[in-house]
Amino acid sequence: MYTMSTSKSYHHGDLRPALIQAALELLREGGTEALSLRAVTRRAGVSAMAPYRHFPEKEALLASVAAHGFNRLRATLSTADSNAADAREALAAQGVAYVRFACEDPALFRLMFGAAQPRNYPELGAAGDAAYGVLAGRVASFCREAERADVALTCWSVVHGLASLLVDGQLRQDASPVMLAERVTRLVLRSVR
Amino acid sequence: MYTMSTSKSYHHGDLRPALIQAALELLREGGTEALSLRAVTRRAGVSAMAPYRHFPEKEALLASVAAHGFNRLRATLSTADSNAADAREALAAQGVAYVRFACEDPALFRLMFGAAQPRNYPELGAAGDAAYGVLAGRVASFCREAERADVALTCWSVVHGLASLLVDGQLRQDASPVMLAERVTRLVLRSVR
Repeated sequence: MYTMSTSKSYHHGDLRPALIQAALELLREGGTEALSLRAVTRRAGVSAMAPYRHFPEKEALLASVAAHGFNRLRATLSTADSNAADAREALAAQGVAYVRFACEDPALFRLMFGAAQPRNYPELGAAGDAAYGVLAGRVASFCREAERADVALTCWSVVHGLASLLVDGQLRQDASPVMLAERVTRLVLRSVR
Repeated sequence: MYTMSTSKSYHHGDLRPALIQAALELLREGGTEALSLRAVTRRAGVSAMAPYRHFPEKEALLASVAAHGFNRLRATLSTADSNAADAREALAAQGVAYVRFACEDPALFRLMFGAAQPRNYPELGAAGDAAYGVLAGRVASFCREAERADVALTCWSVVHGLASLLVDGQLRQDASPVMLAERVTRLVLRSVR
């Protein structure tokens, strides 16, 4: 009974966030390969059987961690957007916030957008849509309707591309990620009518 | 002596491309994880010791495959560029060619740009620089000097972002990758002066 006596016990509702937090830590330390349900329970200090009610398999845990990432991204974009002086500034601020988000947590960014992203989890799909909605909503607030879809995709592509190049170490640059994001975002904004 | 008698023998100079070709096939089938020097020699039909002269370790082989990818990308961008009617069209054509390249060979694209990319191989660095040079050269041919670096980075970011989102299955879209690339590239070009 050694394992049980040293395990923490959680109130219903606290265990899930504790497991997601433990998974996030492991992800940052060693990527998705380092992540197993076993390692997560050890890190969270709970019994090996504890997570199965919430996460029947590793994929389900990864999906929840990615959804957690999209919820944070949505909040980050919303805050950047609402602090800006006008609609165009808001769009630029979202772009910079997106790149900063990726560079501050590359492992989470890779999980959210990489090919290893788990599929077919409604919670994850909804969280991703909500984050995209912050961008699409801002575009819709000042772009003409016929161009909105292309403008939103272009804005997403440029910051996603810059973030990916930075996170994957493809750029030799003196400027900080935020400065690069500001320059690139300003340039793209000139094309938005 | 069974292994030796069934192994192909290559003239000096033919073995290296044969090994790279075998590695490319394995990469497309199962990603970098599926790739070992052992598996590559089996696929190429040569003895297990054959590659060590060219590739002392797996990293060196991956670097050569990635360099091969950048050489192909450079050629693809050059061809697209030189078939265009004018400088702006050439830049747009390069963007579309970049996205098509990624979508036609996602495993190679991921190796070239992913975090698993091998470091510190001069051949690879030179091949990457040469591919980027096709874009930078076109930008320099018609953009004012003060903006060239930002314009080139913006163009690269937008097509790299779109390619990454497509390759990683992040977009639900009806349009083909090439059509999306054309729309996004045209929009960004409006901002290039």
